[in-house]
Amino acid sequence: MKIAILTFDGFNEIDSFVSLHILSRIARDDWTVAIACPAETVQSTNGVRIGAQQPLEFANGADAVLFGGSPRSREIAQDRAIMSRLELDPQRQLIGSQCAGAWFLAKLGLLATRPACTSLKSRPALEATGVRVLDRPFVASGNVASAGGCLASPYLAAWVMLRLAGREAAARALGIVAPVGQKQQYVAAILDVVSPFVAAGAEPVATE
Amino acid sequence: MKIAILTFDGFNEIDSFVSLHILSRIARDDWTVAIACPAETVQSTNGVRIGAQQPLEFANGADAVLFGGSPRSREIAQDRAIMSRLELDPQRQLIGSQCAGAWFLAKLGLLATRPACTSLKSRPALEATGVRVLDRPFVASGNVASAGGCLASPYLAAWVMLRLAGREAAARALGIVAPVGQKQQYVAAILDVVSPFVAAGAEPVATE
Repeated sequence: MKIAILTFDGFNEIDSFVSLHILSRIARDDWTVAIACPAETVQSTNGVRIGAQQPLEFANGADAVLFGGSPRSREIAQDRAIMSRLELDPQRQLIGSQCAGAWFLAKLGLLATRPACTSLKSRPALEATGVRVLDRPFVASGNVASAGGCLASPYLAAWVMLRLAGREAAARALGIVAPVGQKQQYVAAILDVVSPFVAAGAEPVATE
Repeated sequence: MKIAILTFDGFNEIDSFVSLHILSRIARDDWTVAIACPAETVQSTNGVRIGAQQPLEFANGADAVLFGGSPRSREIAQDRAIMSRLELDPQRQLIGSQCAGAWFLAKLGLLATRPACTSLKSRPALEATGVRVLDRPFVASGNVASAGGCLASPYLAAWVMLRLAGREAAARALGIVAPVGQKQQYVAAILDVVSPFVAAGAEPVATE
């Protein structure tokens, strides 16, 4: 399994790194999680420069693609030089977004008939374009999911794990990162939010 | 206020970046949060290379110093070339750790009489050195705090904000990053865990 966490200039550190870390806890030899960027380095919203682990095109062959958010997501989603490098397909890939990352889903036409979750800051402008935004931390419809509020990122990571690695592996990975003394309730609360979107009506991902 | 997030090779991405992001949400001109490293770049436990925002010595003049954890924390805490660059003082600074970062607190002699929280993985070896480890996500004693489980990092960030910016500012910053549709409960749950350690027996930080 290959998972691309698409990370652009101005990126929200929580969005990209919580997913990277939790998904890496699956710890299988055939499981690759990578920060994929449009340039060799990108700078976070709070000024940390990081090196890309993969180019943006890594997403095109990935089993799951997550768009982190940033104050610049809306603008970057309109950048043809960047977007033309992406060839994503919700028939064969899981595609998810965190907060303002929903602008990418909208640009890809994935929110025309699906509701979305996003940050309170992005909500009004997304709604103005016709997207139905929910007052919830997470929603998935088939192979497309979105989360709202940076610390909703464990929900998005849990969804990817439930879909690609199964419930036992997802619960184990979440248990490792959950707060000590609260692990059982913490994992159960995450799975309670996400599981209904996996059990009911999820199309299995067809991978090569 | 200056806050140093000490970040070493092998660092856990959640430990360093969740604190950086949440603490930056205070968004005051006189409030600086920075990733401080022993070298110009360091690489995370999952292979992401990042640039230091400040050298390690930034911590010596900081109002709060947070040690992130990593599989290498125990070894790095024994590295004289690194540790000799730190001159920390719990009388004038808040000092906190996340997960394996507790090895640094132990090395600095801060856990001789204080209980600590840490990851389940670090617990047995820390206990073997005589540290009392709690089955809890967070504990503070005066100006020293520790958290266990990567996703306990919002507790550690909340503690710093409660001590340095007050309850209202802390609740506002946490509310911005909390999951949509769960913000009120989420913030209340974090403050419930941390507030008892601030209200009772906290010595105010004396800053220059």
